[in-house]
Order: sequence, then C-alpha cells, then structure tokens
Amino acid sequence: MSFHINRLVIAGVGLIGGSLAAALKQARVVDEIIGLGRSRESLEQAMSLGLIDRIADSPKQAAQADVVVLAMPVAQTEAVLAALAPNIHDKTTITDAGSTKSDVIAAARRALGKNFSRFVPGHPIAGAEKNGPQAARADLFRGRNVVLCPDADTDATALSTVDSMWKSSGAQVSVMPAARHDRIFAAVSHLPHLAAFALVDDLANREEAEDFFRYAASGFRDFTRIAGSSPEMWRDIALANSEAILAELSAYMNKLGEIAAALDKGDANALEQIFTRASKARRDWETK
Amino acid sequence: MSFHINRLVIAGVGLIGGSLAAALKQARVVDEIIGLGRSRESLEQAMSLGLIDRIADSPKQAAQADVVVLAMPVAQTEAVLAALAPNIHDKTTITDAGSTKSDVIAAARRALGKNFSRFVPGHPIAGAEKNGPQAARADLFRGRNVVLCPDADTDATALSTVDSMWKSSGAQVSVMPAARHDRIFAAVSHLPHLAAFALVDDLANREEAEDFFRYAASGFRDFTRIAGSSPEMWRDIALANSEAILAELSAYMNKLGEIAAALDKGDANALEQIFTRASKARRDWETK
Repeated sequence: MSFHINRLVIAGVGLIGGSLAAALKQARVVDEIIGLGRSRESLEQAMSLGLIDRIADSPKQAAQADVVVLAMPVAQTEAVLAALAPNIHDKTTITDAGSTKSDVIAAARRALGKNFSRFVPGHPIAGAEKNGPQAARADLFRGRNVVLCPDADTDATALSTVDSMWKSSGAQVSVMPAARHDRIFAAVSHLPHLAAFALVDDLANREEAEDFFRYAASGFRDFTRIAGSSPEMWRDIALANSEAILAELSAYMNKLGEIAAALDKGDANALEQIFTRASKARRDWETK
Repeated sequence: MSFHINRLVIAGVGLIGGSLAAALKQARVVDEIIGLGRSRESLEQAMSLGLIDRIADSPKQAAQADVVVLAMPVAQTEAVLAALAPNIHDKTTITDAGSTKSDVIAAARRALGKNFSRFVPGHPIAGAEKNGPQAARADLFRGRNVVLCPDADTDATALSTVDSMWKSSGAQVSVMPAARHDRIFAAVSHLPHLAAFALVDDLANREEAEDFFRYAASGFRDFTRIAGSSPEMWRDIALANSEAILAELSAYMNKLGEIAAALDKGDANALEQIFTRASKARRDWETK
C-alpha cells in the first residue's frame, strides 16, 4: 500500500510547515511542494533551503493540489481558506496545524461551505520555541503526537490522506472530538502558558523587580521559559479557546487557594499531601 | 591576604555540603574536613569520594572547628545547633545553607544563646535537583550567588570568614537583611514551586488525567519540572516562610484573575499587553 501526494501546497512555510515539507521529501512521498505565504522573503528562504519546489504567486495556484496544509497563525485561518475556496477542486484535501480546533472548524465551515467535508482539522504537538523556515527539521515530528479532530461531516478519504501524510512524517496520529482536544490542551498547554505569563508580569511590575530577577535561578528559568513565547500567538490561542481555558484557570486558582489556606493555618499535613501527590505524578510522567 | 580554615565541620554532606567541601579542597584553603550527619552510609560515601577526611561520631567533635557549616534540611537547624552549642568555643564561626532565613535566625538565637553572634545566616543559590554526596561537584558554586543575612548582633569577623569561604568556592556573595531575602525568594523560588505543585496536583486528580499527561509536551515539562522536588523539603520551606509566600500567592492569584477577566470579556488588548510585558521581561532576563 503506497501513499503518495502529487502536489502539496503549504500555506506558511515556517517551523511547522517547513518541517513537514522536509519530512515528506525525505520519506519520498511527495512529488512537488508549493509554498504560499504573506512573506516573500520567508518563501524564498524556504526555496533556497530546498523545503519547497515552487512559490505560488496567488491562492489560485493551489487549485490543482492534492493536499493543502495550513501552517500559519490560527487567526488567519478563515481569510486564507476563503481565498483558497473558489479554486479548490473536489478531490483536494485540506488540513491545518493550529493549536485550537473548535474555532478553526467554525472558521473552515464558514469559509469552505460545501467543501467543508474536505477539511481535516489537525494539531501536530511539536515545540514552537523557534520560528521560520531556517528552524525546520525533517525529524521534528518523529515520535510526536498529531491529533486529528474530524467532524461528522468530514470525508473519510480526506481523513485517511491526512492520517497517512502525518504518519509518513514519523508522527503518531490520534483522533478525538474537537471539544475534547480543546479541553486537554487548555489544561496541559494553554493554562501553563498563561500561568507563566502571569508570574513574570506580576514580578516584573513590582518595585523589587530588579532584585527578583537578579536572584532568580534555575527553577524560575524552567517555570517561566514559555513566558518568552509570542504574545500575539498566545493572545489568539487564549481567545480562540477561552471557554475551556477559563474552566482550567478557575480550577487552578482553587488549588492555589487550597495551598494558601493550608499555609495560613500552618497545616503541614495538607501541604505535604498536595506536594507528595504532585511530585509523584510528575515523576511518574517523566519516566513514562 | 590568605584565607585559611584549619578544621571545617560540615553537618549534612549532601549535594550542597559535599560540593562546598570539594570546592574548598580544590582551592586548598582547608586542612581538614569533618563530616557530621544522621546517615552513616551517606558519610561513608562522602569519605570514599574524598569529600571529607573524617567522620565525627558526635557533635562534641565539632568543638575544635574553626568553621561549622549546616547543610541539612532547614527544619533540623535548631536541634543540630542545640547539640553543637555546648561544645563550641568562642572562636568557632557557624553558618548555614538554608533556603529561608528569618526562621533559621530565630532557631539559631534560641539554640545558641550568647554564641548567637558567631552564627552567620547564609543561602547559596544553587540547584537542588539532585541529592546526596555522589551529586557533589567542586564547581557547583562557581559564578553563583550566595546571600548572607547577618543580624545586628552578628560578629564582623565571623561574617568575614563566611564571606571568604564562599568566595573561595567561586561564588559571588551578597549581603541583605533576612526579611528582604525571604521576600525575594518567596517570589522567585517558593511561589514558582508551589504554583508547579498546584498545577500538577490539579491535573493529576481529574477524570481526564491520563489524557492530560499523554498529550503534555515540552512546555508542560519545563513548567512543572520543579513539581518533582522533595515534598518534605518544600513543606518545610513553605511553612518557614509562610507570611511572605502568602503575600506572593495573593498577588499571583490577582494577576491570574486579571487574565481570566480579560478572557471572559474577550479583551484582546488587555491580554496582549500582559503577554507582551511578560515576554519582554522574560527575554530581557534570559539575555542578561
């Protein structure tokens, strides 16, 4: 059984789009990769790195593609899909790589109309610390999880194509409903980012900020590393998944309140129980 | 100007005590190092690693020491000092390596009585991920901060001895009041630890915990690394510095509440402002 893509269009050839291009070329499952994007400079860099074979001058050139992958910021999804929509033929499979899924599905439904069944919502779980085509690596997705969130309307062949594409890049593919995806990532990704932004902003605006940062050490470094992430990207993710994130923030603040109450009462047992459960869960996770 | 210690007693020859021993031996500023501790096995390991020259069978053998360094868990401070007190001569300098200072000073005052002036409260800021003498490294303190918190009663010669000792290990020494130390470390160390414990315990006890941990990736890994720390050690630190930590927890929860309110209103500007300030502060700190 051989999986093959004749023509692949990647909208946004940065870390994610560029790494997917590199992985699929290395796996020899694609004939031609066309890059589409807002930044001509970035596309030319992707060309010179050999990630793409050609630059599309307009969305019209996506018309003859077998597969279109959206790998640009989530907030641009609807506009990009609307520009692609008139030119897509009924065999084209479209997918995305956004961190939130319910909002992307709603945007795709609006932009694609009757072609919405050809859209397969996707989320590769791979680090986004570095940006741009120069950060792309053929092994970025090897052993990583990719979550696909097909809708009841999603075409089975389109789903199978996207599944095969990601597996060809070395990833493991899971399928789950968008709402569950958004709840899980609100908890394990969106909440930690917001919690790290909150801590750094809290400390940075105090009178003693200079002292704080002078004596901050490795624990602080790790805890706050994700607070160095892109403010615009995280503003968009936070708003796109606000309902699930608000539920997580509320649960987290309750737990912090529980710790504060134990501290206030000098309740050593309650503190030790919380810390012991957390420490065990964290160590178990690390060694899995 | 040559600094020299004839006899050094280290109570607790683990990562911190063992690394100090190794650094001072490498710097050739100490003639003899005597290890004192609850675990015979650990002391014998320290002997076989060449960190100490002799094992003290009782606190009495600390009597002839020039310097005594306490490097065991903070909660044992008073008991260890009380056991040492009757045998300390009036030229002995005593110092500690605990993460909190106001409570250690109170314990030292109770245990040492008139000899309290010979006690120099100290805190080397060095990672505590690994434990035990086998983790000791002569370069652990190189370029790191050591904070000393002398009291109005602290003897100037004792302070100078401890200052020279830490500088001989390669560390930078700062001096500040204990209250300020405890406020700073509540913010940049104790709060992040509690916030990481809280997040992991919150998620670990949910119905979807297995899913959460399955999809958690590198952001989660870094944010929660310190949640794998010793529950007992952090219970003691939390209780020892509860007042300053409660103030930090309250400020942090306010900031999280600010983010929740902005999310609830869909206030993109407010979110972007918080994330932008935090991201800039974090990047500035990293590149310092």
